[in-house]
Amino acid sequence: MDLKTIEWKANAIKIIDQTKLPRKLEYIYIRDLKSLWQAIKELKVRGAPALGVAAGLGVYLGIKDLRVKDFARFLQQLERIIKYLASCRPTARNLFWGLEKMRQAALKNKNKPVSSIKRIIFTEAQKIIEEDRSACRHIGYYGAKLIKGKDAILTICNAGALATIDYGTALGVIYRAREEGKNIKVFACETRPLLQGARLTTWELKRKGVDVTLICDSMAAALMQQGKISKVIAGADRIALNGDTANKIGTYNLAVLSKYHQIPFYIAAPLSTFDFSIESGKDIPIEERDKKEVTGLFFKRPIAPAGIKVFNPAFDVTPHRLISAIITDKGIIRPHYKLNIKKILDI
Amino acid sequence: MDLKTIEWKANAIKIIDQTKLPRKLEYIYIRDLKSLWQAIKELKVRGAPALGVAAGLGVYLGIKDLRVKDFARFLQQLERIIKYLASCRPTARNLFWGLEKMRQAALKNKNKPVSSIKRIIFTEAQKIIEEDRSACRHIGYYGAKLIKGKDAILTICNAGALATIDYGTALGVIYRAREEGKNIKVFACETRPLLQGARLTTWELKRKGVDVTLICDSMAAALMQQGKISKVIAGADRIALNGDTANKIGTYNLAVLSKYHQIPFYIAAPLSTFDFSIESGKDIPIEERDKKEVTGLFFKRPIAPAGIKVFNPAFDVTPHRLISAIITDKGIIRPHYKLNIKKILDI
Repeated sequence: MDLKTIEWKANAIKIIDQTKLPRKLEYIYIRDLKSLWQAIKELKVRGAPALGVAAGLGVYLGIKDLRVKDFARFLQQLERIIKYLASCRPTARNLFWGLEKMRQAALKNKNKPVSSIKRIIFTEAQKIIEEDRSACRHIGYYGAKLIKGKDAILTICNAGALATIDYGTALGVIYRAREEGKNIKVFACETRPLLQGARLTTWELKRKGVDVTLICDSMAAALMQQGKISKVIAGADRIALNGDTANKIGTYNLAVLSKYHQIPFYIAAPLSTFDFSIESGKDIPIEERDKKEVTGLFFKRPIAPAGIKVFNPAFDVTPHRLISAIITDKGIIRPHYKLNIKKILDI
Repeated sequence: MDLKTIEWKANAIKIIDQTKLPRKLEYIYIRDLKSLWQAIKELKVRGAPALGVAAGLGVYLGIKDLRVKDFARFLQQLERIIKYLASCRPTARNLFWGLEKMRQAALKNKNKPVSSIKRIIFTEAQKIIEEDRSACRHIGYYGAKLIKGKDAILTICNAGALATIDYGTALGVIYRAREEGKNIKVFACETRPLLQGARLTTWELKRKGVDVTLICDSMAAALMQQGKISKVIAGADRIALNGDTANKIGTYNLAVLSKYHQIPFYIAAPLSTFDFSIESGKDIPIEERDKKEVTGLFFKRPIAPAGIKVFNPAFDVTPHRLISAIITDKGIIRPHYKLNIKKILDI
């Protein structure tokens, strides 16, 4: 696990520019908030857990050079930065979770000098990184218990090393199962419109020597019909208290197909993806993105007539009743989700 | 209905080069069998009913300049031509149906001079064209009875004017419903990997003033979940005697989703798409196509790592139990399909 998706280096946020993959592995250094906002918006860095880290490091990037000495004025600036970063993408819970962590770190230490608070915020951001590395490994540990040798696992989007610091959630389960000697195959949905499955998941799985086959999203049903898929594992962008899960558009499709074909359907995510404030999926805001992602972004030339109407939601919500289990860093949650999520979150 | 997808003109087969759409409407003239074979293989002309016409015109193209006078030698050449054209694409029934029609026309007239048989074959090919135009209009007529004003109809691939001579099967139903004053909306699945939905269906619907919205294939489930789809209509490449239907990859996915969301799922196809010789879908050969269609064909640059494994079936099979009705040119077939298909085919 040699790559780091995002880290603090040379007084900047260093990320892999994921829009360049699989063609080349290129790092960029982000030195101001606006560039970070753009990098998140354009998915140079993406994946719910990685966005939690970006939030933490982003707040530090924003406050580190502030000249204010007075806490009230510091807080004002901090809130402005938090609000700005929060405006970037609406769905992934971890972004807001990371920002809230930074806010709390400041508030809890408001009697200390601003220079100390800055150091505390930096430490807190580093802690998010360490927690992510640990959480992914725990998700891998618990999730691998569900995997048998010779399982053929279908996944969507990228919930791997590239969506976290260096290991992954859904793919963390796959890496751990492999480390345990299980001989598994993976099928990766290409994940239109932005092709994270084709570009990122196949890239990192192939790099680690995992047997991976790329399919178009529409082919998953035929594979299941032919008995070629034994499990589905997806990541999550936000999980409500009843277990309803927002994730990359197409995840709900796979959940319905899994139900129909009686295939276990798992969500893998750290606790930071759970939203304590919402009871069900209907309250999760769904980002709608530019129609060009569908009609033009990756293509040699436009693939649809000019001016065509497009529906381009980035996420969908899978109702809890279609989810066989949620694999978290604190263990596996099974239905009844409402009870068991509260238990594991200790609320 | 001003376009003609395929016709005989200036002593050649004139087709719309569909690989150029939606960018430009370009016609090409095909003057030899090898060019026809290539054009079908590369989907310059595609769609099961249009392939039936291509088969008819293709046989005439192959035999028209033969110098043989003797029927036995003529038949030998004819069989060679039929075998060659049949080798092009394995799934669409209409191709084989069209070739068989030509063979029968020759055999039935074997006592006539070869020059007469050539004329008969030409007339027979023209008859396929007229039959297609008529069949599509009948499919439209019967199918439109199933459509209500304000229906929102989801379709996949292109089963429109561009898949037939000039009207369409699934889209024929939509055109007819519109002609009857029904105010309907259409959602078009882009249909990866070859994007016939994005490139062709949106193009022809927009051109005819139909309200159409393009989605990625993975978004259909979310639309259904939100109650935004009231019906699904797809075309067919081959229908077995029990109603099992092969169509563009992703059709089976939509059928499962329709079942789950209790949305009627219809197949629209002429009788020439039914295969009298097979009892169920398991006997339908499924074409697997080049992996480059998934990883590279339409893209500025490859979207997956070099050497990645790809699964690229062009079709899937929807079991009859997921099909609410099959709309044909002879009326609507409902379950019990095995009985009702035999009745309508009169076998």
